[in-house]
Amino acid sequence: MSFLYKSEPLRGARWAELFAARAPEIDFHIWPAVDDPSQVRYLAAWQPPENIAETFPNLELVFSVGAGVDQFDLSCIPEHIPVVRMIEPGLIAGVVEYATLAVLAAHRDWITYIAQQQQGQWRPKPVCTADSRRVGVMGMGVLGRAVLEKLRDFGFRCAGWSRSEHNLPGIECYTGEQGLEDFLERSDILVCLLPLTDSTRGILSTELFRQLPKGAVLINMGRGDHLIEEDLLDALYRDRLSAAILDVCSVEPLPKEHIFWRHPRILLTPHIAGMTQADSSAEIVLDNLRRHREGAPLVGLVNRERGY
Amino acid sequence: MSFLYKSEPLRGARWAELFAARAPEIDFHIWPAVDDPSQVRYLAAWQPPENIAETFPNLELVFSVGAGVDQFDLSCIPEHIPVVRMIEPGLIAGVVEYATLAVLAAHRDWITYIAQQQQGQWRPKPVCTADSRRVGVMGMGVLGRAVLEKLRDFGFRCAGWSRSEHNLPGIECYTGEQGLEDFLERSDILVCLLPLTDSTRGILSTELFRQLPKGAVLINMGRGDHLIEEDLLDALYRDRLSAAILDVCSVEPLPKEHIFWRHPRILLTPHIAGMTQADSSAEIVLDNLRRHREGAPLVGLVNRERGY
Repeated sequence: MSFLYKSEPLRGARWAELFAARAPEIDFHIWPAVDDPSQVRYLAAWQPPENIAETFPNLELVFSVGAGVDQFDLSCIPEHIPVVRMIEPGLIAGVVEYATLAVLAAHRDWITYIAQQQQGQWRPKPVCTADSRRVGVMGMGVLGRAVLEKLRDFGFRCAGWSRSEHNLPGIECYTGEQGLEDFLERSDILVCLLPLTDSTRGILSTELFRQLPKGAVLINMGRGDHLIEEDLLDALYRDRLSAAILDVCSVEPLPKEHIFWRHPRILLTPHIAGMTQADSSAEIVLDNLRRHREGAPLVGLVNRERGY
Repeated sequence: MSFLYKSEPLRGARWAELFAARAPEIDFHIWPAVDDPSQVRYLAAWQPPENIAETFPNLELVFSVGAGVDQFDLSCIPEHIPVVRMIEPGLIAGVVEYATLAVLAAHRDWITYIAQQQQGQWRPKPVCTADSRRVGVMGMGVLGRAVLEKLRDFGFRCAGWSRSEHNLPGIECYTGEQGLEDFLERSDILVCLLPLTDSTRGILSTELFRQLPKGAVLINMGRGDHLIEEDLLDALYRDRLSAAILDVCSVEPLPKEHIFWRHPRILLTPHIAGMTQADSSAEIVLDNLRRHREGAPLVGLVNRERGY
């Protein structure tokens, strides 16, 4: 019975140690070192190997090492095999940190000050209080809710929008199509934490930007394909948006010649908002293996219909 | 009986409205519009007028509109006149926001990513967890304590250093000379929130930087004169410090030709970390006037010996 890991090797080495100590009955392998593919029961990957079903005939469970499964082609994973995405405290904490950092940077005009520094300009702007700033978070899963709770504690006026209904103290909760319109209309700082699915691809578009208050700031921590890149450039050009903070791009690494690198109102980071932390994620995977053996509900089980 | 305000005019206009509603018995004047200087009992200023004692013979109380009084020459204000610095919730909230923003920016490598963006480089760094990061705050007054409590909630390992002893749950508290040494040795991210006095001027020096862990980040939110600018440049050059975030400079506005503008490891903002907010500060001033009339202790009363 073996567990195959195919992702970042340093984290893999740490998982191997933790598995050896905590689940010595499982042979832990780091891709591509697999002796006997027919022994592989569990697979954890960012990009899974090809021909999963044929290569690993006894596969029982597939883990994504990231919070999403949009990088998987679910149709290649036989229906009877549960797919689990990563919901682990280290990743959640990282996302909360990044969202707080990006929202505070938008709130306190850091994109303007970074551009002014490059021009040698000392031009203080008035400081607005947090309760005059309306933050909207798209996506109210584990990540979105954790982010909203942290931002609420700074005094921002917070709202969340999501496909399913939620109820969170001190947060305005919106749902569905009509809800989206009302939600956008009141969001000065918009944070995208949606899963990438067929219904959210390209959602950050001219049509959506038009519904935001003029001069809103976009923070995309979802996936690059949530955003139509030319629509963002157009919205910045027309001052519909005043700035954008992007942690994700359609093509990563972003090509050298891409205009986003040099845009004075775009702040770019290289997909680092949330990273699966070796120790805490190993705990969650080991716990899910136990749940699987015992027939208990898996934490982060993907609903294939919804796509997340 | 009149109140003279000499500072940012928009805030002055708002104070005038609030005074008219809440303390109509006081004539509120905005500098330089003073009919009869002998009527002035109360003065609120950033830079006070010259010859205070001679010009305003019946002055009873002086307010700084900022958190510090280092911009005042206290020797020009007669001993019997209490001097009060601004301790008000709007200013405190702004300082907490900025400190959180700057510490998270240091923690999540944003200074590196801003420089990489300018170079068109996509180079993700591993994400460290907050509990692996040791933050140290110099100054444990109202501002320092509020900042420490917020940072503690992110899971950072937090310490404070201050002249007087403090006790704050979950925060390592250091005091005095020996305490400073121990405090610096364990501070990966150092935040200066000290008042500027003769004993803190130039404290951010080569001698202090040498005691920090190699590669520490400096955040100066105190005053420009806490920092010896050439010592910072030297520490960055020698990689003793990896980066600095500066909200204050010795000369403000920073002269156009100053090297800080173009340094890839310095992030500059134009003295905006904390700003006295019109509504909440007017409340505090009105409350202090009431306290003064009733002989109750003033909130923010400056100890002239200490200088803050």
